Amino acid sequence: MKASKIPAATITRLSIYSRALENLLTQGGAPVVSSKRLAELCGVNPAQIRKDLAYFGQFGVRGVGYYIKELLFDIRKILGLNKDWNLAIVGMGNLGCALVAHQNFAKQGYRFVCAFDADPNKIGHKLATGLEISPVQDLIEVCRETKAEIGVICTPPERAQEIANRFYQVPVSGILNFAPVQLQTCEGCKIENVDFTVKLDNLAYYLSMS
Amino acid sequence: MKASKIPAATITRLSIYSRALENLLTQGGAPVVSSKRLAELCGVNPAQIRKDLAYFGQFGVRGVGYYIKELLFDIRKILGLNKDWNLAIVGMGNLGCALVAHQNFAKQGYRFVCAFDADPNKIGHKLATGLEISPVQDLIEVCRETKAEIGVICTPPERAQEIANRFYQVPVSGILNFAPVQLQTCEGCKIENVDFTVKLDNLAYYLSMS
Repeated sequence: MKASKIPAATITRLSIYSRALENLLTQGGAPVVSSKRLAELCGVNPAQIRKDLAYFGQFGVRGVGYYIKELLFDIRKILGLNKDWNLAIVGMGNLGCALVAHQNFAKQGYRFVCAFDADPNKIGHKLATGLEISPVQDLIEVCRETKAEIGVICTPPERAQEIANRFYQVPVSGILNFAPVQLQTCEGCKIENVDFTVKLDNLAYYLSMS
Repeated sequence: MKASKIPAATITRLSIYSRALENLLTQGGAPVVSSKRLAELCGVNPAQIRKDLAYFGQFGVRGVGYYIKELLFDIRKILGLNKDWNLAIVGMGNLGCALVAHQNFAKQGYRFVCAFDADPNKIGHKLATGLEISPVQDLIEVCRETKAEIGVICTPPERAQEIANRFYQVPVSGILNFAPVQLQTCEGCKIENVDFTVKLDNLAYYLSMS
């Protein structure tokens, strides 16, 4: 099945299913989860899970549910998480440092292999994980050396496009952008934006309507 | 129009349109933007913008485009951003501090009115914004005093549900959850999750397919 045929929302939900399965696995307990329970944990209905998984084959056993470990393995494989991904991060302020320290990245197979900042006072500083901050001027070279595949942008909005352009030159295949600005794209590089205030706007809308 | 009739994706895009309009306003220049240009800046097609706005009335002038200031005003009103929203935040690690310092929150009318942590060493500490960290035991009382409307959870995943339960008791009307766990919901409180690794999974999927 071509990636383009699968709704983006399905991919996002697969990721949410995998989180729930991981939590079930960590908690121990039965090796099987009913589709009803998995749906509850993910905030969807069981039919949605069946529909999402149906894009990729046959999963689960009728009347029994899903084998947790197997389904997790299959979903991680679908998502391309049966390998580690190398991340390069730029902008080592509070947010950048929080991301590098975030326990969930490593757990999911996302490894920060290089970190950059424009502030000369931060260059050479070692993060808690042992990663050393490099000058942003060396981005292209260091990203190539460390085989970075995904760039993470945590700079102020006015610097983000310039950093994206450098990432395009490496080239990286994807960018996770935390700067609150829409980046100009480049063929061959997929961009995902994380804007907290967009999520807050969603909340504000629903709260003001209720 | 009832909130429930509007697709969630439309609300998310309205928020993205408002960011683009704000950037245009900051940059100065013409008071009008063509629907083609606005669409480019937002990474959608012009028909999508028209369709999204059509849920809320008639906007823009045929053959001219959109008056930037007016459309921004209207979208912010639709989103419930013609008022400030009071935020309470729990978990003042790197991420929590990054959020409080994030320039975009205040700009959008989101004000952190109280901050909490479980670590006795952090209690009483003043953040850069002047906000003082309170003990998590006082959450309900302090949230009521400061009229917090939205709770922001930046705790480790294993503490998140307990914090959500306290927010439900305040009660707050919405929660922005950064902990990588699906929270049990409570009637009258809307939850939005921000999980960075879900976004990364999206990237990994597309990269592994290409």
